[in-house]
Amino acid sequence: MTHLDFWFDFGSSYSYPASQRIQAPAAASGVAVHYRPFMLGAIFKEQGWTTSPFNIYPAKGRYMWRDLARICDDLGLPLVQPSPFPQNSLLAARVATAVAGEPWAGDYCAQVFREAFGHGRSISDAEVIRAVVARFDGDAPRWLALAQTAEVKEKLRSETDTARVLGIFGAPSFITADGELFWGNDRLEAAIAWSSTR
Amino acid sequence: MTHLDFWFDFGSSYSYPASQRIQAPAAASGVAVHYRPFMLGAIFKEQGWTTSPFNIYPAKGRYMWRDLARICDDLGLPLVQPSPFPQNSLLAARVATAVAGEPWAGDYCAQVFREAFGHGRSISDAEVIRAVVARFDGDAPRWLALAQTAEVKEKLRSETDTARVLGIFGAPSFITADGELFWGNDRLEAAIAWSSTR
Repeated sequence: MTHLDFWFDFGSSYSYPASQRIQAPAAASGVAVHYRPFMLGAIFKEQGWTTSPFNIYPAKGRYMWRDLARICDDLGLPLVQPSPFPQNSLLAARVATAVAGEPWAGDYCAQVFREAFGHGRSISDAEVIRAVVARFDGDAPRWLALAQTAEVKEKLRSETDTARVLGIFGAPSFITADGELFWGNDRLEAAIAWSSTR
Repeated sequence: MTHLDFWFDFGSSYSYPASQRIQAPAAASGVAVHYRPFMLGAIFKEQGWTTSPFNIYPAKGRYMWRDLARICDDLGLPLVQPSPFPQNSLLAARVATAVAGEPWAGDYCAQVFREAFGHGRSISDAEVIRAVVARFDGDAPRWLALAQTAEVKEKLRSETDTARVLGIFGAPSFITADGELFWGNDRLEAAIAWSSTR
């Protein structure tokens, strides 16, 4: 079974619909999804950006929220603009890194995105993340503690370095098993098609 | 019959496939395409950019050329990376402005994009533009002269101002008769669907 790496940051707006859409078409095409959270802000910083380009360039930001509203409307997904935007996604990403080997890791990621963009909840709040983990595992505190270990912190830093080396400059990004990079929620279908036909 | 404003810059890479694709689906949906060339560089300058963001951010630029190659491959379109990129599009845009009332104005625009991105020809070269116009009209020199009049120059500046006021920050952009903005070659279908269902 081939796979598709799904690179995302929990603060990334277009990663929200991608996270809600990816499972069904990937499964239908026999493509396993590998969830690869990383810290997009670290890559933005190297480009000289201290916040999202959607904040730096107001016309682009206004358009993004309108475009995202249309996309979510088409998908029947709720959308609340998080405040602040982007949210601090470090805790959510560390927990995702900690739970990466669990069968519910993908469901955790999808639920964090729903909390952030569907309900406008603060995903930097440990209580919010703990409640998400508790949906899938009886010992949420253990996973939150694991998320703060040096190993997990280093793993997340290393994943961000890997993303940069792979040429990733935004989220969501998809990389096929043969190394083809696709950027954007609107490239999900192309990435799955590429994966399933090669 | 409703219409869709197709805003583009002849130097814009993703405007090339959009220009080659737009006519058939728009016609099939009963949507008239209005060609609206503008000078994207003037809008970039206000964002502090002196060249294309695809040049400023190398990872994004490398991705764009690969993504565009995939898109053109799917469409059966030739693709040559113009040198320099972006090309100076002022002459081509002024001529497009001059010929805007002619029935072949859209075909002129599509052909200029083929010269630039399909064959890698210099569209700042008056001979190249003259040859494109000559495909559609017996008196090409007249149109090139008209393109250099104060009225045409001012019209193009005014169109660029209008683009900015409408919230346009990139190309291609599509604006429906009821004012909905869509950005990107990948939003063409959504823009036509929006136009034809409202």
